[in-house]
Amino acid sequence: MDYKKILKSIHREVKPILPEGRVFDVIPALASVPISKFGMAVKTVEGDEYFVGDAMESFSIQSISKVFTLILAMKHQGDGFWGRVGREASGNPFNSLVQLEYEHGIPRNPFINAGALVITDCVISEAIEAKSAILNFVKFLSGSQTLQYSFEVARSEKENGYRNAALANFMKSFGNIHNDKDELLDTYYHQCALFMSCLDLTRAFLPLANNGMPLNAKKAIITKSQTKKINSLMLTCGFYDAVGDFAYRVGLPGKSGVGGGIVAVIPNVLSVCVWSPGLDSHGNSLAGTKALELFTTKTGLSIF
Amino acid sequence: MDYKKILKSIHREVKPILPEGRVFDVIPALASVPISKFGMAVKTVEGDEYFVGDAMESFSIQSISKVFTLILAMKHQGDGFWGRVGREASGNPFNSLVQLEYEHGIPRNPFINAGALVITDCVISEAIEAKSAILNFVKFLSGSQTLQYSFEVARSEKENGYRNAALANFMKSFGNIHNDKDELLDTYYHQCALFMSCLDLTRAFLPLANNGMPLNAKKAIITKSQTKKINSLMLTCGFYDAVGDFAYRVGLPGKSGVGGGIVAVIPNVLSVCVWSPGLDSHGNSLAGTKALELFTTKTGLSIF
Amino acid sequence: MDYKKILKSIHREVKPILPEGRVFDVIPALASVPISKFGMAVKTVEGDEYFVGDAMESFSIQSISKVFTLILAMKHQGDGFWGRVGREASGNPFNSLVQLEYEHGIPRNPFINAGALVITDCVISEAIEAKSAILNFVKFLSGSQTLQYSFEVARSEKENGYRNAALANFMKSFGNIHNDKDELLDTYYHQCALFMSCLDLTRAFLPLANNGMPLNAKKAIITKSQTKKINSLMLTCGFYDAVGDFAYRVGLPGKSGVGGGIVAVIPNVLSVCVWSPGLDSHGNSLAGTKALELFTTKTGLSIF
Amino acid sequence: MDYKKILKSIHREVKPILPEGRVFDVIPALASVPISKFGMAVKTVEGDEYFVGDAMESFSIQSISKVFTLILAMKHQGDGFWGRVGREASGNPFNSLVQLEYEHGIPRNPFINAGALVITDCVISEAIEAKSAILNFVKFLSGSQTLQYSFEVARSEKENGYRNAALANFMKSFGNIHNDKDELLDTYYHQCALFMSCLDLTRAFLPLANNGMPLNAKKAIITKSQTKKINSLMLTCGFYDAVGDFAYRVGLPGKSGVGGGIVAVIPNVLSVCVWSPGLDSHGNSLAGTKALELFTTKTGLSIF
Repeated sequence: MDYKKILKSIHREVKPILPEGRVFDVIPALASVPISKFGMAVKTVEGDEYFVGDAMESFSIQSISKVFTLILAMKHQGDGFWGRVGREASGNPFNSLVQLEYEHGIPRNPFINAGALVITDCVISEAIEAKSAILNFVKFLSGSQTLQYSFEVARSEKENGYRNAALANFMKSFGNIHNDKDELLDTYYHQCALFMSCLDLTRAFLPLANNGMPLNAKKAIITKSQTKKINSLMLTCGFYDAVGDFAYRVGLPGKSGVGGGIVAVIPNVLSVCVWSPGLDSHGNSLAGTKALELFTTKTGLSIF
Repeated sequence: MDYKKILKSIHREVKPILPEGRVFDVIPALASVPISKFGMAVKTVEGDEYFVGDAMESFSIQSISKVFTLILAMKHQGDGFWGRVGREASGNPFNSLVQLEYEHGIPRNPFINAGALVITDCVISEAIEAKSAILNFVKFLSGSQTLQYSFEVARSEKENGYRNAALANFMKSFGNIHNDKDELLDTYYHQCALFMSCLDLTRAFLPLANNGMPLNAKKAIITKSQTKKINSLMLTCGFYDAVGDFAYRVGLPGKSGVGGGIVAVIPNVLSVCVWSPGLDSHGNSLAGTKALELFTTKTGLSIF
Repeated sequence: MDYKKILKSIHREVKPILPEGRVFDVIPALASVPISKFGMAVKTVEGDEYFVGDAMESFSIQSISKVFTLILAMKHQGDGFWGRVGREASGNPFNSLVQLEYEHGIPRNPFINAGALVITDCVISEAIEAKSAILNFVKFLSGSQTLQYSFEVARSEKENGYRNAALANFMKSFGNIHNDKDELLDTYYHQCALFMSCLDLTRAFLPLANNGMPLNAKKAIITKSQTKKINSLMLTCGFYDAVGDFAYRVGLPGKSGVGGGIVAVIPNVLSVCVWSPGLDSHGNSLAGTKALELFTTKTGLSIF
Repeated sequence: MDYKKILKSIHREVKPILPEGRVFDVIPALASVPISKFGMAVKTVEGDEYFVGDAMESFSIQSISKVFTLILAMKHQGDGFWGRVGREASGNPFNSLVQLEYEHGIPRNPFINAGALVITDCVISEAIEAKSAILNFVKFLSGSQTLQYSFEVARSEKENGYRNAALANFMKSFGNIHNDKDELLDTYYHQCALFMSCLDLTRAFLPLANNGMPLNAKKAIITKSQTKKINSLMLTCGFYDAVGDFAYRVGLPGKSGVGGGIVAVIPNVLSVCVWSPGLDSHGNSLAGTKALELFTTKTGLSIF
């Protein structure tokens, strides 16, 4: 497969629609990213890498970080946390409180904000220092020792984080947050404020395309069975309230963030990451979704 | 009307059902109140007072305080705050977040917790020091200079106030809280922690039975029209999700609190207060509701 | 009180706002009523009658009929049906299905469509022929032997009644409709299609202002206690999702219909009816609500 | 892969849990099926067939029929009906009306009852005689000319179909049902009352594992792209409110029915069907889900 040529043609095709999205402007530190940015990268399980556009430029990964903390929680607790968080699509926006009330403080899945807070709470319970633990784990996965949290973005998230503070307080009222809520929110805002490039992310996600095995590693970070489970969760819950639409159009397990990044995997084949900061009405990258749709059409790759 | 005799016979009749309620145990400082307590007081617009049982013993007024802050807000802002809070029954428990989400952070009415927080936020915007202003106003209304906040109860509320903190943060995310949320919650926890007796409360509520006029005062605290409006709000929204049931059984405008107090008024006739700490499943005093039902039956007084 | 003069001045004041409402157009037979129509009538417990404008012209009473079937059901079953229908404000539009699902097919109150269907179902269970029984009862109450159902409106309601059919089927699936659903809907569409004038309605509602006693009758149709209960239900549930607003502005128990009629009572004083076919966004007569607000302001009458 | 042996070992392993489920008893005609029944069949894209237990006994396919009408609708209208039905998981039980109201009569996806009614409505609009068209299409797909509707089950569904009648009426009130609602419900009750065996179903579903191509056919029934889309819909919406759980445990696109059947496909490999009438709390076959979980574990086959 000539991935290089395919990425180039996708880049050409999506260029006209880049301005149609809307850059996330709730967090001032993100609002200034130029909407014209576009990067895309592929990493195969054989280790080959292909990329195009701004694929080496770092951006705020936001909700994509929820996959990293989920892997960490699973490494520590196996299936132990499923009593505290469900695994069904929410059918609601990512920051909704409605279902939490009807369902007694148990979030629908680990990828809506409430569920991700519970997962981060698990990581805090297990790690000596959660922020370091998360950063070091992502450095290891991506092979990049220079990754950093953006303290500016983390501060900006905090200053505008009333909705997340509401979620944390609400779940705490149900007894479903075990650690101090200020420490929880601080950790959460930092994980969302990780900056990574498309290339970093394809590397960090490769184990999910490779039965849990990082490239050049001696042992898997999670089992083959756990890898399948995380992939199924990404497919059924990874795109807020546009899960079905993404599966219908793209057909790959993946995770998006409001920074405009989307990572997806084709089991046993490759990981792929696209970045374009203009979002659609569901909070997913508009051109990024289109780029992945073109990618599966042009390569004929799909899980279905 | 022989109110003294009526109160005595009510006291006798409700005694057997006192143990059927359940003392509010979310706030430890309230959980220890003996369920056998019962007091009831009446104050007529002519100035006569009648009481029975523990009517002179102070208890935590909790949500009854929402009427005092509403009067204060109306004194300052007239009808100016109705864009920030509605006046419809919520049909949901007092601390629900569901409607807030569907209705963009605008609480249904001033007597559910979310609405009361908005009203207290208005008071903070107007007063130099809100906690003092509220306390002084209630001292004036009741004519009792010894009223105090219970700092123990306020602290206890704060330590268990994750749900209220969630409400405040959630509304702040919609821009519907203007002041600092910690100051707001602190003020709110204090107003709920006011301690008053049945007798104090009948005095403080008398203006609502007397077209806005406190007894022995030279001028009304609010207009006749505002008085009617507050009474209509108490009737349609004053009893959480048991408004219709209370109106059906008792037929008086009033307000209840989880401390077990209920105050009600009969326009142009009297104010009446009952206290019994055992609550029904809606959070209203079980024996207190029964006592008021007996009161309207025995006196034949009703607004309907 | 010079009611004649008050009605005239109200008529003059609301004339300019008559065109601001919107005539109910879901049912074609109602859509053609001129928006310029306005009538108002008062009947005192002493038997005096006052009226202005189109007060003697008949209109489709629609949901006002729900009060008549409620009285009938109460005559037959006392408080026996409260297990099948609640008495709390719904906080939702009159034809909503949402709460029915969460609350297992038990409607919130007898004045939303679902609750009125249950009440009509009770009447069918008790009467030999429900449609005749309802018609005869309203003839008796109003003292008008010429009242008729509009078969054209009833047919039009049926042809556009998918939402009501959904409600009936839905409650039947919960076992909360006992009779045949086609008979139920037919009866319901007919009761809504009763045509009455403002004057007819003040006469028919007078017992609710008169402790259950029709004028010139030998005995009450319902007890004094039942009268108070129905009045409290009208106040807390009689205006769809604008109950609190109506109580705040008008302060009287009453019932509205999408035909543009509103009837209200002042206990021990009078019944009052206004008709203006232009509706506000809640389905209540826009000018009719304003007229009643002016009526309580000008007369100083209120229950609060 | 020794499928024969794998099926046998699965049969042995699930036998003890067969009695743990609960046979669907809303429809009397289904309530009498023995809970001890168990059948399982596999058909590979090479044409090989394997089966065990009661795999040749016919059962009521119920909601599995929704896939057949979806294929038919797609054949006729392509992507033309997506304005009338969504493709997101509902997060609610299969017969819920709540979301329909919030979302203006547009069902969440084609596999909840409301969505399936819309799809059947599309088929009625396209076919000369919808019931024959559906039956003939399934006969063709399965290669079995003896398939029949059970008129007894269809009648039983109708007699207990108040909830479905509510759904049809409700959507009709939003204009989202184009044909007569009685014809719609009759067609729907018949498609649910199709009787097929596990073997029939693996044959009928094989095209979804084979890029749209039935075995031994000259041309595909739907395109490769449409096949992927239907598979993605089954994965994200095929199991009521247990979609995420099924994907997590089994990891295959599929569809269940309250008759106890589940069909699933592994793209490019095989179709598999299991039947066990005992259901879990979500309405999916309890032992059937377990059997498919064992099947993916033992074969190592998965789409993730």
